[in-house]
Amino acid sequence: MKKLRVGIEGGAGFTGGELIRLLLSHPKVELAAATSSTFPGQPVFLAHPNLRGRTSLSFTRKLDYAKLDVIFLAGGHGDAMSNVPAIIAETGPRLRIIDLSGDFRLKDEALYPVWYTRKHKAPELLKKFAYGLVELNRPEIRKARLVANPGCFATATALALGPLAKGGVAGVVSVTAITGSSGSGISPTPITHHPTRHSNMKAYKPFTHQHIPEVEQILESLAGRKNLKLSLVPISGPFARGIYAVCQVDLPKGWSTERVKDLYASAYKGSSFVRLVPEPPSLNAVNGSNHCDVYVTVQDGRICVISAIDNLVKGASGQAIQNLNVMMGWDEAVGLEMAGHYP
Amino acid sequence: MKKLRVGIEGGAGFTGGELIRLLLSHPKVELAAATSSTFPGQPVFLAHPNLRGRTSLSFTRKLDYAKLDVIFLAGGHGDAMSNVPAIIAETGPRLRIIDLSGDFRLKDEALYPVWYTRKHKAPELLKKFAYGLVELNRPEIRKARLVANPGCFATATALALGPLAKGGVAGVVSVTAITGSSGSGISPTPITHHPTRHSNMKAYKPFTHQHIPEVEQILESLAGRKNLKLSLVPISGPFARGIYAVCQVDLPKGWSTERVKDLYASAYKGSSFVRLVPEPPSLNAVNGSNHCDVYVTVQDGRICVISAIDNLVKGASGQAIQNLNVMMGWDEAVGLEMAGHYP
Amino acid sequence: MKKLRVGIEGGAGFTGGELIRLLLSHPKVELAAATSSTFPGQPVFLAHPNLRGRTSLSFTRKLDYAKLDVIFLAGGHGDAMSNVPAIIAETGPRLRIIDLSGDFRLKDEALYPVWYTRKHKAPELLKKFAYGLVELNRPEIRKARLVANPGCFATATALALGPLAKGGVAGVVSVTAITGSSGSGISPTPITHHPTRHSNMKAYKPFTHQHIPEVEQILESLAGRKNLKLSLVPISGPFARGIYAVCQVDLPKGWSTERVKDLYASAYKGSSFVRLVPEPPSLNAVNGSNHCDVYVTVQDGRICVISAIDNLVKGASGQAIQNLNVMMGWDEAVGLEMAGHYP
Amino acid sequence: MKKLRVGIEGGAGFTGGELIRLLLSHPKVELAAATSSTFPGQPVFLAHPNLRGRTSLSFTRKLDYAKLDVIFLAGGHGDAMSNVPAIIAETGPRLRIIDLSGDFRLKDEALYPVWYTRKHKAPELLKKFAYGLVELNRPEIRKARLVANPGCFATATALALGPLAKGGVAGVVSVTAITGSSGSGISPTPITHHPTRHSNMKAYKPFTHQHIPEVEQILESLAGRKNLKLSLVPISGPFARGIYAVCQVDLPKGWSTERVKDLYASAYKGSSFVRLVPEPPSLNAVNGSNHCDVYVTVQDGRICVISAIDNLVKGASGQAIQNLNVMMGWDEAVGLEMAGHYP
Repeated sequence: MKKLRVGIEGGAGFTGGELIRLLLSHPKVELAAATSSTFPGQPVFLAHPNLRGRTSLSFTRKLDYAKLDVIFLAGGHGDAMSNVPAIIAETGPRLRIIDLSGDFRLKDEALYPVWYTRKHKAPELLKKFAYGLVELNRPEIRKARLVANPGCFATATALALGPLAKGGVAGVVSVTAITGSSGSGISPTPITHHPTRHSNMKAYKPFTHQHIPEVEQILESLAGRKNLKLSLVPISGPFARGIYAVCQVDLPKGWSTERVKDLYASAYKGSSFVRLVPEPPSLNAVNGSNHCDVYVTVQDGRICVISAIDNLVKGASGQAIQNLNVMMGWDEAVGLEMAGHYP
Repeated sequence: MKKLRVGIEGGAGFTGGELIRLLLSHPKVELAAATSSTFPGQPVFLAHPNLRGRTSLSFTRKLDYAKLDVIFLAGGHGDAMSNVPAIIAETGPRLRIIDLSGDFRLKDEALYPVWYTRKHKAPELLKKFAYGLVELNRPEIRKARLVANPGCFATATALALGPLAKGGVAGVVSVTAITGSSGSGISPTPITHHPTRHSNMKAYKPFTHQHIPEVEQILESLAGRKNLKLSLVPISGPFARGIYAVCQVDLPKGWSTERVKDLYASAYKGSSFVRLVPEPPSLNAVNGSNHCDVYVTVQDGRICVISAIDNLVKGASGQAIQNLNVMMGWDEAVGLEMAGHYP
Repeated sequence: MKKLRVGIEGGAGFTGGELIRLLLSHPKVELAAATSSTFPGQPVFLAHPNLRGRTSLSFTRKLDYAKLDVIFLAGGHGDAMSNVPAIIAETGPRLRIIDLSGDFRLKDEALYPVWYTRKHKAPELLKKFAYGLVELNRPEIRKARLVANPGCFATATALALGPLAKGGVAGVVSVTAITGSSGSGISPTPITHHPTRHSNMKAYKPFTHQHIPEVEQILESLAGRKNLKLSLVPISGPFARGIYAVCQVDLPKGWSTERVKDLYASAYKGSSFVRLVPEPPSLNAVNGSNHCDVYVTVQDGRICVISAIDNLVKGASGQAIQNLNVMMGWDEAVGLEMAGHYP
Repeated sequence: MKKLRVGIEGGAGFTGGELIRLLLSHPKVELAAATSSTFPGQPVFLAHPNLRGRTSLSFTRKLDYAKLDVIFLAGGHGDAMSNVPAIIAETGPRLRIIDLSGDFRLKDEALYPVWYTRKHKAPELLKKFAYGLVELNRPEIRKARLVANPGCFATATALALGPLAKGGVAGVVSVTAITGSSGSGISPTPITHHPTRHSNMKAYKPFTHQHIPEVEQILESLAGRKNLKLSLVPISGPFARGIYAVCQVDLPKGWSTERVKDLYASAYKGSSFVRLVPEPPSLNAVNGSNHCDVYVTVQDGRICVISAIDNLVKGASGQAIQNLNVMMGWDEAVGLEMAGHYP
């Protein structure tokens, strides 16, 4: 069987490296090219030392779209909205595009100036991108040629709350979500300076993180209306990988614990990457894998849902490949069967 | 000036070690004795290698109460309620007692079977202990001879919410609080096993942690009624020291941001250990010190309060000494002036 | 093709879990059974939460050797020497055995009382076990039915020094090797207590670690005589996975840097798991993989060799599977192609 | 008593912050001013959040030397050699100077181009600076007005080896020394990027670190000749604070273990900051303090010495204050009595 030819824009960052790592063992895909403006012409393993001996690929400056079937966009936020219109103009609808940035996640262009502090450059494309949270939006992704891969906080939070939204739960959800440092990318900044990140906790953007509107959008589409309002406080945690999201919301009057748990069992039946776990999850049970572990408990009129993912796998590159699998009509777990590392 | 003679029951644990470390440089105190059932007769530095060369004290099996003015109880939960009645019977009211366990924190004996899974053994003493959260209960501590030192989660959470309670804010407060591993004590357990604690996050006892009722109790006493209900999810974090508490609650209708912030400025005026900080706090700015950094923000009808403490200092031994200072009528910062370590 | 039927004795520990994780994706192997005395009859994922949803296997109390082609022994040190004679008596030479403990690594039974503080219980078997350090002992392993899988420190150190031994370098080698906490196993102990292991370094067993004689033994067999003496100081490091070994030895008089580097290029040509790297290696480039990264530099008459492995993969379970592959005449990388995680 | 007036050049870095933290509780010193080119005119606590509420000092752009008795130079390497000649020209010998950089540590100007890749700009001053390793050079420091504070690796290594040098031990010493990330300073770089520093080990500058010649210089001065050659491999470790140095050297023929241990007892009698410990030291027993824990063992003709310090305290700012105390004829522990934190 001829393999699908895949290219990566922005292959030298953490999500780019994770895409390469995972695609190298994907049986239906040939990784044809990856770009880097920092390492053009140099071996991929210079940026990703784990890949030494695993691939002889070198970074290029540009992708040759004519030779590719699918591209992953793993560059910075803002790059995709600048480049995608020209790519589509050049390639027509033939080329599938999976964008890992936030550029095409929101349907409503009016939200971009609010949450991303800039006007959208290609608003006519917003409705053409499917929101790539497979477990909550599989039918749309199946038909899509353009997919906006969800944010890492959004993935963990939406998977935690999606069943409640479907079930009609309403109210304000308090979410505290802790992220590993790899979520900040490969360039050193004060936020990722080891001496001060190590052993520390530091919240940031309380109530104002840009992943909030994409979660509210998918929850609204599942509920049929704006039932759930997201009140999110992100925290920078002292580990490299993982998102750990703790969500609390009022139990609807008269609901039993079973009714809540049934929503989860029903929503994730057939979604092997989401595991409903009987005690609070651990990052080290999901890290390295495409799993999202979800725990639900109810007490005294309150629902608590906790979810855990690897931010670079289920929260980025693994999910992007899962989207590819779904778009192609393949088993959605192809190339993503690895279990997490523990410990 | 004659120094106050101090003894410690349970000096070989982490809070015991921290008491010794801090008391050794307290100018008004002489550390006369510390007990350990594991290291009786052996130098303190065998249990606490940081103290080698700093003290020639050896652990004893028992305290000689007749020679002491104050004792700190730093043994396990349940020990204090077993022992304090006999101590008081022996010493009369002369001996001051500061208990670091949960045994005397709750006024209502009916709560013990619910939250601590056992009946209280000395319920007649519960009302005689002052709850030792200085910034929120200073007048009562000033007059007390018996003080129940608050729990670490309780300290961080109550300091975050006390001003709201005083100000009349009502509702359910969603709290996610992350703790360092030293909070689990000096004995190895699966929860503190390095390979699985490292780089991990794992919630536990969601909605059922035993520090919940002591927070609700102090908030009720500040408010004059049961206005605030605590909905707490604790998390085991991958660091050794610190409690980081993120609290969310609805803003009362019609309230301004300033009104909220004024509550904090007013509540903590004159309380030098609580620092109101203009951006979310960091553990590494408080660890090693008796500070509690508190941040407040308001948006879209929601209040977020975040607090950070060193669980072994402000969350245990430092606060115990602060209680001693207040009981003695000394400057409450005596012996506790050290700044935190950063980084 | 009929798959090889594999069993694991001691499947609930870290090396057991890693064996299961890796064998589940090995294309030529069927994991038929794994024992646990702690979790008999219970699902494997109770011990290894990463494997939830990946296998429906439950632990058994005993293996049925008649139904197995190969067994991995991943129990405690001392178990294998007690059990292997009976296993062989029962199964005859048909059953292949790969022992991950230290019980059969040393050819000379006189070394056991010295380094393992007990007499060997099955000395007649010592010479029948091949020492399973593939890159340095492949021919013997190919013919073996019994393999003693090397220790984690031994693997990192012997791979660093093997080429020097082959090349005739002599002298005392100073080695400092830092290990992750997973090397101490799944049971909590003071050495793996998170509050004190975190952010700490602590050497142990300086000059007396039990992996020393197995390294000297393989180096002697490569050199043809006792040329290299190992002077090893192990350190407990504050991370979960990895061995980082720094070795120093005098450069033989008259030798050039090239001569040294040629020894490595020659020794590891065709050994894809050993990667010769042009700058000092990183644990995060090998962790999660079966790689050993090796760096060599020469200056002022001194050779420095630094090696890095994942202690649970190349230092234990991955290497055990590599040994299986070699014994079976398969490509030695089958089932072990995964790249390390980075970051 | 009039307090000594102290100024700091470069107060916004980690060593600057640590100097401020420690000097604020030094009873004989008034911290008069600290400069920062990044935060001029801004409160010290903006750079060092631990100091909020502990000092009202703001950074200045320049020091007014006329108003100061002592200055600490905590700027970058190369600044001191550029500025000190002018400072001395302006102030004459009145002003004491303690330089924390590497600019004045080596007596031989010919070493600067080799180890620091540049010619020295004030070679005439090199002999006027005392090397500030108090325990090994106290008499010279007592008389000095100019002190070069040792490097962090140099402090740990020289304290480990000084007694051997004094005792006449000769040979090549293999040293592996692991450093915390705060040693790289406050500016984010790839070396201190949390995602890749976390859980990692990575050696750098094997045999070529610039602290080598200052250790060899002090050892030579103690021995009276070049007896000990330093063969040092530094490693970047995954913790924020600490230097852990493991040293190995041949035992001289005929020497007993006692003879070696006596050298240490004798060398450090009366030096309270150096603690001879009976088992390998731990970073968490010294971190936060000015201690250096030293362990010595002998076996099979080899000596192993292991030392542990807090790189920012004994390895930098604490030692600088210790030097001040010695220069002033004060008890050398004034202001430095704090015990380390544990855990």
